[in-house]
Amino acid sequence: MKKFVNDPHDFVPQMLEGLVLANAGKLEYVPQYNLICRSDMPSDDKVSIIQGSGSGHEPAHVMAVGRGMLDAAVPGGVFSAPPVEYCLECIKLMNSARGVLYLVNNYQGDRMNWDMARELAEAEGINVGVVVIDDDVAVKDSTHTVGRRGVAGNFFVIKACAAAAEQGKSLEELVALGEKVNAAVRSMGVALSSCTPPAKGEPIFAIGADEIEMGVGIHGEPGRSREKLQPADAIIEQLFQAVHDDLPFNSGDRVALMINGLGGTPVSELYLLYRKAALLCEEHGLTVVNNYVGEYCTSLEMAGASLTLLKLDQELEALLAAPAEVPIRVF
Amino acid sequence: MKKFVNDPHDFVPQMLEGLVLANAGKLEYVPQYNLICRSDMPSDDKVSIIQGSGSGHEPAHVMAVGRGMLDAAVPGGVFSAPPVEYCLECIKLMNSARGVLYLVNNYQGDRMNWDMARELAEAEGINVGVVVIDDDVAVKDSTHTVGRRGVAGNFFVIKACAAAAEQGKSLEELVALGEKVNAAVRSMGVALSSCTPPAKGEPIFAIGADEIEMGVGIHGEPGRSREKLQPADAIIEQLFQAVHDDLPFNSGDRVALMINGLGGTPVSELYLLYRKAALLCEEHGLTVVNNYVGEYCTSLEMAGASLTLLKLDQELEALLAAPAEVPIRVF
Repeated sequence: MKKFVNDPHDFVPQMLEGLVLANAGKLEYVPQYNLICRSDMPSDDKVSIIQGSGSGHEPAHVMAVGRGMLDAAVPGGVFSAPPVEYCLECIKLMNSARGVLYLVNNYQGDRMNWDMARELAEAEGINVGVVVIDDDVAVKDSTHTVGRRGVAGNFFVIKACAAAAEQGKSLEELVALGEKVNAAVRSMGVALSSCTPPAKGEPIFAIGADEIEMGVGIHGEPGRSREKLQPADAIIEQLFQAVHDDLPFNSGDRVALMINGLGGTPVSELYLLYRKAALLCEEHGLTVVNNYVGEYCTSLEMAGASLTLLKLDQELEALLAAPAEVPIRVF
Repeated sequence: MKKFVNDPHDFVPQMLEGLVLANAGKLEYVPQYNLICRSDMPSDDKVSIIQGSGSGHEPAHVMAVGRGMLDAAVPGGVFSAPPVEYCLECIKLMNSARGVLYLVNNYQGDRMNWDMARELAEAEGINVGVVVIDDDVAVKDSTHTVGRRGVAGNFFVIKACAAAAEQGKSLEELVALGEKVNAAVRSMGVALSSCTPPAKGEPIFAIGADEIEMGVGIHGEPGRSREKLQPADAIIEQLFQAVHDDLPFNSGDRVALMINGLGGTPVSELYLLYRKAALLCEEHGLTVVNNYVGEYCTSLEMAGASLTLLKLDQELEALLAAPAEVPIRVF
């Protein structure tokens, strides 16, 4: 294993310490619960928006905490769900008179722990809402999920709900909005390489020098097919077609298009991928109103990328245009 | 070679096409000269700021074109200097009544071609200024340079000069400012892996599974020493000490601190590195006023990072705080 790491078990806390050192006065760190939150939250003026899942997907989600995005994030260890206690403390710490909304990607471990935390929080009289994200079209069920997985499309749910929360929307309105965004967003990814969790010390799956995993999950879960390496444009055509046909998107739609790097792919390659994706949108009559090229939801140092399309309407276009301020430019 | 690429010879143009497709209305692409420029430039109200060097270092420099940063960038092929003709056309296209300033990192190929372009442009009556950047403390001379190499510290020169240009400073003032920034900035990098230029198809150097290259150059040039892999904090201590002692920085200094990823290192590891760098600044009495954690000047998909320190004064603090708008968040 060749990484910048000290004791592998300190990987997550030391990353979080670095994050708050770099954002003094804006972010706070609660080491006891692996918790990162805005220094100025909670506020009874708005619903608090929170999220927590395994680490190793940065900038998701700890680096998406800031004004106009998440109010707090509570990650678990690398690729493992945050314990119930962490989730509960996060809800309690971000408790607001307007309520607390947690956004959870559809993985069994995350959902189970958040559900238990929610029950416990509600028993204490806290008003809690939830939106489940499952934008990954690659597979119906997977090793970690019943139903589809939640991946980079999650960022659009965060952004829309957080912008609407800043405008004073109610918890019930935000749940409906989050579900609307999730229903309009589709993603699929591809891996060129595996990745190595620090405490595991070896790659999470094997892949040949001429192979790619089409439809890979963000924890290395198998996708649709193990294929031979292909030209970049052919890979994007597969991702685009799968995503496009699933909703389906239709000629005349206005969309947001995201090319998300999985951690080890340089931004030069991401723009090369964006080129073909943008051309395919044009061919299919889709107008790209917003675009996002960079790292949003990664798998440690995995070489690979995902493509996300979101169908827009006037409400969503306005929400995506709202200001946001986070450590890593995500929106 | 496992990359997102079509014909390897189209790697740079297709990346640039993607970049302008993602920035319609803001950036223009002149395929003939590999040139990316602001759509609203040049203007006779300000000095134009331009840069060009080998590709493969993205976001440097094509993704640093935008308001408050570069007015144009003219990259060569991967790790090869832009031809004289490209440099000259870039100067001519960005010609302004206030003059044109090019910023060049200290590599023989880049300097030679820009010098020739400058002579040709001056013969046509264009007022051209130059600032040479050589912030890398790793080695005195290297395979590609007489004197020190220019690396990520370059971004501070761009930012300061571009912000001052927007304020109406003259070409002579900007040259002096750029030289002042370069004199106050120091960097050093380390590689955990090699990288593979698309058209070459194989790694530019070999490195053992337990080895790191301390002081590596951004084209894989040898650094100070080939060492065994060490804990992240020990690596940062070496980088920090080399950079700190070179200027030297002194207790009481106010600084900007950058942890730059070399392309294949995930942002989680970069924040883990930032943690130790920030603690070392504190120990040495340095106040970190501005921090930058992410990818600025990369070597394709190389796993590795560099540390940059800039000594600030009131003028530089104000210039770093000026607004900038580029495709990739760099400042």
